Amino acid sequence: MENSQGFVQHITAKSENYSQWYIDVILRAELADYSPVRGCMVIRPYGFGIWENIKELLDRRFKATGHKNAYFPLFIPESFLAKEAEHVEGFAPEVAWVTRAGNEELAEPLVVRPTSETIIGHMYSKWISSWRDLPVLINQWANVVRWEKTTRLFLRTSEFLWQEGHTCHRTQEEAEEETLKMLDVYRSFLTEDLAIPVLAGKKTEREKFAGAITTYCVEALMTDGRALQAGTSHNLGQNFAKVFDISFLDKDNQLKYVWQTSWGVSTRLIGGIIMVHGDERGLALPPRIAPIQVIVVPIMPPSSEETVLNVARDVVERLEKICRVELDSRDEYSPGWKFNEWELKGVPIRLEIGPRDIKAGKVVLVRRDTGEKTDVPMENLEDAVIDMLNSVQEGLYARAKRFMDENTHVTNDYGKFKAIIEEERGLIFAPWCGSQECEVSVKAETGATIRCIPMNACSKPGKCIHCGDDSTDWVYFAKAY
Amino acid sequence: MENSQGFVQHITAKSENYSQWYIDVILRAELADYSPVRGCMVIRPYGFGIWENIKELLDRRFKATGHKNAYFPLFIPESFLAKEAEHVEGFAPEVAWVTRAGNEELAEPLVVRPTSETIIGHMYSKWISSWRDLPVLINQWANVVRWEKTTRLFLRTSEFLWQEGHTCHRTQEEAEEETLKMLDVYRSFLTEDLAIPVLAGKKTEREKFAGAITTYCVEALMTDGRALQAGTSHNLGQNFAKVFDISFLDKDNQLKYVWQTSWGVSTRLIGGIIMVHGDERGLALPPRIAPIQVIVVPIMPPSSEETVLNVARDVVERLEKICRVELDSRDEYSPGWKFNEWELKGVPIRLEIGPRDIKAGKVVLVRRDTGEKTDVPMENLEDAVIDMLNSVQEGLYARAKRFMDENTHVTNDYGKFKAIIEEERGLIFAPWCGSQECEVSVKAETGATIRCIPMNACSKPGKCIHCGDDSTDWVYFAKAY
Repeated sequence: MENSQGFVQHITAKSENYSQWYIDVILRAELADYSPVRGCMVIRPYGFGIWENIKELLDRRFKATGHKNAYFPLFIPESFLAKEAEHVEGFAPEVAWVTRAGNEELAEPLVVRPTSETIIGHMYSKWISSWRDLPVLINQWANVVRWEKTTRLFLRTSEFLWQEGHTCHRTQEEAEEETLKMLDVYRSFLTEDLAIPVLAGKKTEREKFAGAITTYCVEALMTDGRALQAGTSHNLGQNFAKVFDISFLDKDNQLKYVWQTSWGVSTRLIGGIIMVHGDERGLALPPRIAPIQVIVVPIMPPSSEETVLNVARDVVERLEKICRVELDSRDEYSPGWKFNEWELKGVPIRLEIGPRDIKAGKVVLVRRDTGEKTDVPMENLEDAVIDMLNSVQEGLYARAKRFMDENTHVTNDYGKFKAIIEEERGLIFAPWCGSQECEVSVKAETGATIRCIPMNACSKPGKCIHCGDDSTDWVYFAKAY
Repeated sequence: MENSQGFVQHITAKSENYSQWYIDVILRAELADYSPVRGCMVIRPYGFGIWENIKELLDRRFKATGHKNAYFPLFIPESFLAKEAEHVEGFAPEVAWVTRAGNEELAEPLVVRPTSETIIGHMYSKWISSWRDLPVLINQWANVVRWEKTTRLFLRTSEFLWQEGHTCHRTQEEAEEETLKMLDVYRSFLTEDLAIPVLAGKKTEREKFAGAITTYCVEALMTDGRALQAGTSHNLGQNFAKVFDISFLDKDNQLKYVWQTSWGVSTRLIGGIIMVHGDERGLALPPRIAPIQVIVVPIMPPSSEETVLNVARDVVERLEKICRVELDSRDEYSPGWKFNEWELKGVPIRLEIGPRDIKAGKVVLVRRDTGEKTDVPMENLEDAVIDMLNSVQEGLYARAKRFMDENTHVTNDYGKFKAIIEEERGLIFAPWCGSQECEVSVKAETGATIRCIPMNACSKPGKCIHCGDDSTDWVYFAKAY
């Protein structure tokens, strides 16, 4: 977007080429950039500002539920990865290997962590010996590496940033409770802070995490009709506890294995924000995570430049106390150019102020989500801004919720099912017999996968969308990122 | 420290075996642990809590000076590292190499970043084209890997966490100003937040960063008489700009190379905190970065357990509004055991409350730094705690400053010099002729290195401590970590 020549570079029309629109928004809003290393991205300051806000808000929710942060090594010995059979099968094909270090070949190659269950499991076996040591409630903010064949900025990159919670519990019930609690933390974070409505549910056996007993997830619907897995929470049972020998002496003096969970969200959430809220003009950021919530654009005819700038600075000083505000006083760009730029960057509120506004004792607020303009008397400035920030937050959620509702279809007719998927019209709620054969066939024939079995199970009897047998569950299908 | 059997494990006496004391404090206070990967450590929640506070306070200072955070890839193509001759010479021997990924041998091996000048330089050359794009003021919080032969928890580990600032400027003067500004940010952060007095100065040619024009540093004195380089700020000149072609069209329409800086501190700061403030009883944390500032220990005879616990909970609720406070209500440990444990963990204030205190309407505050006990009436609780936290912060600084002053020697007698270094009695301020020969000989003969040439140069004429020629500078020598 920044362009020394001073004209706005256009972004591809969303309606014409969704993928190109997505990339254009990221590059031109300066959220991220391609890197010289295949599949790795650079997160630029504006994009990283969003991630910092996500981290802060999520971290507060983790701490409020009793979790503490720690840091485990980036490298994992090859032998660790191999211990849990499903885990190694799931991850080995996509890991990066360190084979040489300090000018020597390593005796045992090291894996660059794709996820940390194994190395953390090893440490937990050292730290835990009694029921008094439980629960262990630890989270890690870290970079992880999964060598992906096809990559897409934010959604699928060879290196990405995430958080991974890893907990140990005394009983199976406690572990299940924790798994669901963290799923709910994700659900409320996405809806309240990111303004993204989600489906919360359980993954099928085929789609679950490699090494888990059960994987729960939150799924969001992008505006191109595809689903995005936005967060997962795994009940690991005793799978890792057994292979890493994480055991404790229980109250009854018996040696037992702990029950574990793990859960994570990543920088792919930023991709979700772009695709749920973005529009033809570019990004539209929910106020709670917007690095700049209000951009002040002074309208400065040469005669009154100083007067306007002074008032604009006063306005910024007042607003700094209540929100994240910035002044765009650059003189090499016109107000119109700036309007476009800050709309592209998704700033929730634009505040315009010119000589006539000053005379009338007011400013103009313009909402990014609706484009609506409101005159606000100077004396009401703070209240009006706070109200409008809340209103934009709610407005974005309401719009996204409406979109999801309108694009969720209920059918048990496979012909209709195929047409909906083919036309990229969103989610389908349909009965399923519970067999992997049908799940795999549907995917092969339509490209759609089972996104989740909803938490509030639908008890209505039905016939499987694929084979016509009695259904075990009603599930959500969609094409997914 | 946590021990299911309920007795306190002792730490080695500091006066007897300093290195073992250092390790004992780290392991028993649960700051960190060894990992199964050679030279890598695990930062446990209590240690990571210190790092989180360091990050937050430093990040605030970076943002107040106009910097923004971003994130660059973990991997760097081999060819990038090779571009700057001194840089590759300095780092190549200690890097870890990814040679295989996703089941394939990589055509070009990747370096796991030991520092990011090269990859960031590559991106800057894409982003910068006009003087209007300058300055670029970016910082990154990240993990880096340097394959070390001998490692020591926090001080030298194969992987560590740090921040690295990377800036670009229009002029040489601006770059030098930035270099010194960030050095001063480090100096004030260490003195004000970590309560660690420092020497600020310039490194010699021999000790400077591989690829820099000038390296400035802050050096602290540990209580065993050795110096610790706590932070560095580099003026990179145009070295990287030239090899990565980071150029811009200046106001005069000439294409010019940018002037760069980089600067960093790492998790080794935690090692510094331990060695500057720790004592025979364990860790002593400066309140500003202590994860727990006040630990409340209820004294509960069985008869009045509930009453005491209720009052203790009220106290915690009041203090939560003004500081980081925790209640230790575990019933499996005695108050005496808890006193020892929280002293070992370095909590600045212990608050004791028992039936007699409740009757008298007071609590007892005990300072970690001096052991001093103070009765505080309930109604003065908040003020007393805030005052005492400030007082502990100042007290730790004053004690460390006194130690540094008492252990800084001025001499130009090489015999005395050798004795002081041999006896590990601290820093020596001595004249130096400016030649690398003398610098190298002093190191070979005594183990001491030039820690820095102080910012406020001493103009007194002198004779080089080693060769006896006229000195160019008075410099600080010490053995260093």
